[in-house]
Amino acid sequence: MRASGRLIGIGVGPGDPELVTLKAMRALGEADVVAHFAKNGNASHARAIAAAHLRAGIEEVPLFYPVTTEIPKDCGQYRDALRDFYDASAAALARRLDAGRTVAVICEGDPLFYGSYMHLHVRLAGKYPTDVIAGVTGMSGCWSAVATPIAQGDDVFTVLPGTLSEGELTRHLANADAAVLMKVGHNLPKIRRALAHAGRLEQAIYVERGTMAGAVTMPLTAKADECAPYFAIVLVPGWERRP
Amino acid sequence: MRASGRLIGIGVGPGDPELVTLKAMRALGEADVVAHFAKNGNASHARAIAAAHLRAGIEEVPLFYPVTTEIPKDCGQYRDALRDFYDASAAALARRLDAGRTVAVICEGDPLFYGSYMHLHVRLAGKYPTDVIAGVTGMSGCWSAVATPIAQGDDVFTVLPGTLSEGELTRHLANADAAVLMKVGHNLPKIRRALAHAGRLEQAIYVERGTMAGAVTMPLTAKADECAPYFAIVLVPGWERRP
Repeated sequence: MRASGRLIGIGVGPGDPELVTLKAMRALGEADVVAHFAKNGNASHARAIAAAHLRAGIEEVPLFYPVTTEIPKDCGQYRDALRDFYDASAAALARRLDAGRTVAVICEGDPLFYGSYMHLHVRLAGKYPTDVIAGVTGMSGCWSAVATPIAQGDDVFTVLPGTLSEGELTRHLANADAAVLMKVGHNLPKIRRALAHAGRLEQAIYVERGTMAGAVTMPLTAKADECAPYFAIVLVPGWERRP
Repeated sequence: MRASGRLIGIGVGPGDPELVTLKAMRALGEADVVAHFAKNGNASHARAIAAAHLRAGIEEVPLFYPVTTEIPKDCGQYRDALRDFYDASAAALARRLDAGRTVAVICEGDPLFYGSYMHLHVRLAGKYPTDVIAGVTGMSGCWSAVATPIAQGDDVFTVLPGTLSEGELTRHLANADAAVLMKVGHNLPKIRRALAHAGRLEQAIYVERGTMAGAVTMPLTAKADECAPYFAIVLVPGWERRP
């Protein structure tokens, strides 16, 4: 009987290909198969970041999401479609693992922090030897791009998905010293109102494509429109009582 | 007149020397001077992580904290001693920057996320060209070491310093889907009580020296004593409603 292969979740960082770790690079060089998620019809962001580190002849398994963020998430049809997609994706990787191959799943940012890899991890990690290689998160890339200290000392730091209600956003912002708002997109007007209610609008910084070519950064109050990509983020720096 | 040098804050990641990024490695290779913080009489953790990437002949500037965590932080003497130390440290680096040298400050984790580098950054970044290179945070290293998904989807994720009061810890834990408790040390009994009050003790995971040799990880309920180093952390994973 052949020994099963190994699953490796690899964080490739926030976008700049130089923010890949040595460990990620080595693991990619040793993998037989590399899988990556992407919107149907689009190239994978993780693959673009890691492209220079993929060896010639590696087998690629693109995993295309069947639905997009445009469908309401509380709809049963959306949940079922995604569950079936993750089941099928895990099965496709399990076939390679059963054949003794080393399967890398590359992920933007960090694999276990709001990443799609986690859906494969919970389906496969109990059945196959598994390693996870931490990566630089998208939010670290963003606050470094604007060279802005985000949290220090006894600060409470909170990450808030922009999908929360205006009331929830306001309540959490009022409780935090420092915050990052993710999944901005069409939630931007709601995020602005919550920041204003919590008295934090003046400090907020808008960041689009943080460490990538074409990065856009400005005080949120200077942003004249309500157009923002889904992956834009808003930073609310803490450390207001500096010694 | 000679042009001034460049300041570079470099995150070297959570401990495993392989979790250094390509960008950090390149910047270290180009620096004339490397500065690092350490407790007086101790070796710098950041230096130990980056040791393999320091070129021969680089000038090293060790910065030794004048006081330790044992002194109460709300004491004026502590605040004054630290302020004087950061002022003197910034002045020592400014002399090298004025001489046109490239000065790297290496930091465990990410430079702008609860790091001492920030005290130099706010004193120098307005006066000299400055870059910040994001790093893998200590907390990413810890949840990857235990291969545990920390936050997903609409989770609210909160970082809490263990120095907060029991009441504050309990309140913030009750408001978060996922949390990381830092600065554990002698705060461990208080952290346990807050987790119990918030109904989260059963899920909590204790991690010591996450990605380093001699890592210790266990369910917090399995930890029989109250001895924990200052840099231990406790993870409270979110993602409880999995599709």
